[in-house]
Amino acid sequence: MSQHNFVATQWHSVLAALPPALRIADGDTVVTRTLDAAGVDHEGVARAYGGNPMNGPIHVAGAMPGDSLAVDILRMTPIRTHGWTRGALAAHVVEPERARDLPPRNKTDWIIDREAHTVRLAEAVRGLEHLTLPFEPMIGCFGVAPAGGQAISTATSAQNGGNMDYRGCQPGARVLFPVAVEGALFFLGDCHAIQGDGEIVGTGVETAMEVEVRLSVIKDQRQTWPRGEDASGIFTMGNARPLDQALQHATTEMLDWLTTGYGLSAIAAGHLLGQVVRYEIGNVFDPAYTVVCRLENRWLPPRL
Amino acid sequence: MSQHNFVATQWHSVLAALPPALRIADGDTVVTRTLDAAGVDHEGVARAYGGNPMNGPIHVAGAMPGDSLAVDILRMTPIRTHGWTRGALAAHVVEPERARDLPPRNKTDWIIDREAHTVRLAEAVRGLEHLTLPFEPMIGCFGVAPAGGQAISTATSAQNGGNMDYRGCQPGARVLFPVAVEGALFFLGDCHAIQGDGEIVGTGVETAMEVEVRLSVIKDQRQTWPRGEDASGIFTMGNARPLDQALQHATTEMLDWLTTGYGLSAIAAGHLLGQVVRYEIGNVFDPAYTVVCRLENRWLPPRL
Amino acid sequence: MSQHNFVATQWHSVLAALPPALRIADGDTVVTRTLDAAGVDHEGVARAYGGNPMNGPIHVAGAMPGDSLAVDILRMTPIRTHGWTRGALAAHVVEPERARDLPPRNKTDWIIDREAHTVRLAEAVRGLEHLTLPFEPMIGCFGVAPAGGQAISTATSAQNGGNMDYRGCQPGARVLFPVAVEGALFFLGDCHAIQGDGEIVGTGVETAMEVEVRLSVIKDQRQTWPRGEDASGIFTMGNARPLDQALQHATTEMLDWLTTGYGLSAIAAGHLLGQVVRYEIGNVFDPAYTVVCRLENRWLPPRL
Amino acid sequence: MSQHNFVATQWHSVLAALPPALRIADGDTVVTRTLDAAGVDHEGVARAYGGNPMNGPIHVAGAMPGDSLAVDILRMTPIRTHGWTRGALAAHVVEPERARDLPPRNKTDWIIDREAHTVRLAEAVRGLEHLTLPFEPMIGCFGVAPAGGQAISTATSAQNGGNMDYRGCQPGARVLFPVAVEGALFFLGDCHAIQGDGEIVGTGVETAMEVEVRLSVIKDQRQTWPRGEDASGIFTMGNARPLDQALQHATTEMLDWLTTGYGLSAIAAGHLLGQVVRYEIGNVFDPAYTVVCRLENRWLPPRL
Repeated sequence: MSQHNFVATQWHSVLAALPPALRIADGDTVVTRTLDAAGVDHEGVARAYGGNPMNGPIHVAGAMPGDSLAVDILRMTPIRTHGWTRGALAAHVVEPERARDLPPRNKTDWIIDREAHTVRLAEAVRGLEHLTLPFEPMIGCFGVAPAGGQAISTATSAQNGGNMDYRGCQPGARVLFPVAVEGALFFLGDCHAIQGDGEIVGTGVETAMEVEVRLSVIKDQRQTWPRGEDASGIFTMGNARPLDQALQHATTEMLDWLTTGYGLSAIAAGHLLGQVVRYEIGNVFDPAYTVVCRLENRWLPPRL
Repeated sequence: MSQHNFVATQWHSVLAALPPALRIADGDTVVTRTLDAAGVDHEGVARAYGGNPMNGPIHVAGAMPGDSLAVDILRMTPIRTHGWTRGALAAHVVEPERARDLPPRNKTDWIIDREAHTVRLAEAVRGLEHLTLPFEPMIGCFGVAPAGGQAISTATSAQNGGNMDYRGCQPGARVLFPVAVEGALFFLGDCHAIQGDGEIVGTGVETAMEVEVRLSVIKDQRQTWPRGEDASGIFTMGNARPLDQALQHATTEMLDWLTTGYGLSAIAAGHLLGQVVRYEIGNVFDPAYTVVCRLENRWLPPRL
Repeated sequence: MSQHNFVATQWHSVLAALPPALRIADGDTVVTRTLDAAGVDHEGVARAYGGNPMNGPIHVAGAMPGDSLAVDILRMTPIRTHGWTRGALAAHVVEPERARDLPPRNKTDWIIDREAHTVRLAEAVRGLEHLTLPFEPMIGCFGVAPAGGQAISTATSAQNGGNMDYRGCQPGARVLFPVAVEGALFFLGDCHAIQGDGEIVGTGVETAMEVEVRLSVIKDQRQTWPRGEDASGIFTMGNARPLDQALQHATTEMLDWLTTGYGLSAIAAGHLLGQVVRYEIGNVFDPAYTVVCRLENRWLPPRL
Repeated sequence: MSQHNFVATQWHSVLAALPPALRIADGDTVVTRTLDAAGVDHEGVARAYGGNPMNGPIHVAGAMPGDSLAVDILRMTPIRTHGWTRGALAAHVVEPERARDLPPRNKTDWIIDREAHTVRLAEAVRGLEHLTLPFEPMIGCFGVAPAGGQAISTATSAQNGGNMDYRGCQPGARVLFPVAVEGALFFLGDCHAIQGDGEIVGTGVETAMEVEVRLSVIKDQRQTWPRGEDASGIFTMGNARPLDQALQHATTEMLDWLTTGYGLSAIAAGHLLGQVVRYEIGNVFDPAYTVVCRLENRWLPPRL
């Protein structure tokens, strides 16, 4: 397994079957530096148009349609001392008639302290003078080329991943995407220093990062939606509007995983999920929302 | 403060301004035994028609419209050695075309071990032979009489609480309801030995319990939706369909709490929630779904 | 069949099993004068608190749970020369971020010309100087007492009818409600001089009217949601949020009507609805939205 | 203005900035023969993979981003004597628990009588023996290349049009799309001999047709979503899930049209739409649903 240092020189605002910027072997690791969501690099230079410009695509040898691409998030290192948010709540996360009273969604700067591993507002805001948040990095947008010749905007997400904005996509997690084209064609960008559930101000603390991932091909996983594993358990991700449909996708994918991957019957899976399932909300901001369905390792039967 | 042992002799399938079954003082505690969701008591006797029959209402002296009723859940003790579920996934939590393949939602028995504090299937299910769940009791349905002469079915929930089926309504939690009628008129029932997020099989492990609560009147809370506090933080609860609207209610209520209760501006509340808010899903089964908006204590400014 | 002149002296803001204000025989007609949605009568006197105060309930002899109550809307006569609206679009019918720019929803007066059968703005609005609308009366809120001891606010609607705000509930239409209590207990109010689809400003032209209806008991209709018939065809009404669920209710009710009332198989009903069904939107303003599913008479097989 | 006879030799399952198959001048007409939704031509030969294969793209000289492309549907002639549907109701248009009982969605053949202008089932279905439907042709999927390098599947729709499945897209209608790339790049296919609202069996009567359209560039229309005009009035189209959001898009677009195109203030537009707007449902089957917002010509002030 080799490690590649991938220096992006162009960026993409769609996930699609574009010409590979890098070709690697199954199981190789890649280190790469991402732009922030507005296309600004670690030196403050605007390198690409905004809207989550992606590094990639990376072609992984041996990945074929029907396989899964496993992305192990090994490391996320901040390469800039500041990030930014769009301060105020999005209009659609409050009661509609209250949207009239919301403050404007101005750009707000945050300090990323790389020694202390903290994040704080650059300018004091009354009542939050002492707010110091942990640096809890996550990848906002990543995934593989979709099926059928589609080119899907990095503003949104679908079965192939994309802009899911889920804080569980953090170092230590393995996220699996269904491969639709030869080589998988992996894209990555839009890293956040921290983000609350739902991305309800429309951003996390957006910044540039150096990210290290391992990309591996998994055969016979038979997945439809993104899946993942981390220290606490397994999870599936549904992307759609409204939240109800995103939840349907995530739950169906978990049902499929439990039956085909763990040998449970549909009724056994129902008994288990019914009493111990956990749901988390990735984003409720993007055109497709993200709901995550989780099951802790302690409840899982042996994998087939 | 006195303690009342409240022995219910009739039960209600609506939350409404019905004649009080018990009158207590502000701050008193009440111990009462609930039926299960099907109206069966701790001895296996059917005492009321199903659909979450409620004990109550309890009139709390001094509670006036505009106040809040604080319900401290002090203790939940199982008074039966078995509970039941409706085994299979509900049709609407999977992708619609997949609903055709779901198993029927038959009644399934579970053993509640009161010594070991565990819950397990009464009959072995293949793949789940060793499944032993913790006893994690919660109140599925509770709340106060609604405004405007409404009588709201215990199948659903609204601003006054009701059938929210949120596992965070457990011993140690304080849940606050907006009072709409003199005396508040508190109702309680539908206890679960354990339940996953979303109540996606339509039930938790339904059983009869002895519950101890303290009921206190809070002035000037100015709340619209149920709120709560527990060891980890504060939370608000929105009840509606779809999940998107339930999330709007919960988020708006949290925004109101942060601004009127903690003195934050709307922009400061946005900064805080945007990066640290957590959402949880109560139920996605009942006519109104429940979304919970949470903020940990460590992020809260001093209360006004 | 007798005709009753029913002079209401109290009004209700819930549909519930309240003491009858009038008792009639099956097939009798009733003439009654309604207040407007704010509780103001034809002389401009505030007689009841707002929020769609209802005349009723009317007890219809012989109506039993499981029956249907047929309401023939025979006549709606304006008894006031003015009505009012809440001018601007509701925040939730435009894109959320655009809600910030909407004008306030102020009360606006309209002139009802009883000779010309027209409706027009009382004060000129630029660009609408020549707008003269037809008087197209409709009942905004009507229905029967719900099941299970519920008392449902006249702000919303459910299986028993209520605040559906559908412009098809007009003279010439027969609307059928599922009876849940002995005597049906019929309520009526909230008449509009005209209203667009969706009631997207939150009101029609709200006014007081004299309404004449015939109330008849239908046996063995086996309906769950409101149904109707008019000169053009048959229709079913689903009430819920979001619109998607209201559409599910209305479509399921139509499927049931075609199979049990017209003897079609599910597959035949699918063929027919798939190519000729029409959907209309009652309201997208109230807590429950209303979707209407329609089938023209020319496509219907003979009734069983 | 010239007329082009465009014989497609390849077809596309995405709307994207693909190499033009035909270049025409502003205002030219095009006659072209489409495949059916499964990729079968008028002679019964499978020419392309299914999923609404499109003829195109057609490059219209002078069309620039920010312009609108007006598509006048001049003629739709059936070129085959049969069509097909997927008989049964889709699972998600009925109540979820009822989906278990729906018949399978088998392919069903229909006869298109080109002399009589009628459509009927090829094999008798009990209860529908005498069902003869009018030939009411419509374009299910058409639109222009989207912005930002996206390639959007012909299974769905967006701001650029696509698979809206609205029966109002019929001969006599003019539909306007917002141009995002130089030349507009127009696509066309998926014609139906008839279709009910909502496309609730997942298809209309799918067939091959010869279609004649005129394509014209309109400057300064400033539209975001598809718009249209026909003999009865003007309309706007919103594409999204759930229906609520599609309705928000369509209503916002109509508000914009009334203010920028007809000089109404937001409050005047609210008065007008509130009392006379009509909503229609295009599809509730595709990944994005379609809601149409309509205003009759008789209510419109003079165009600016």
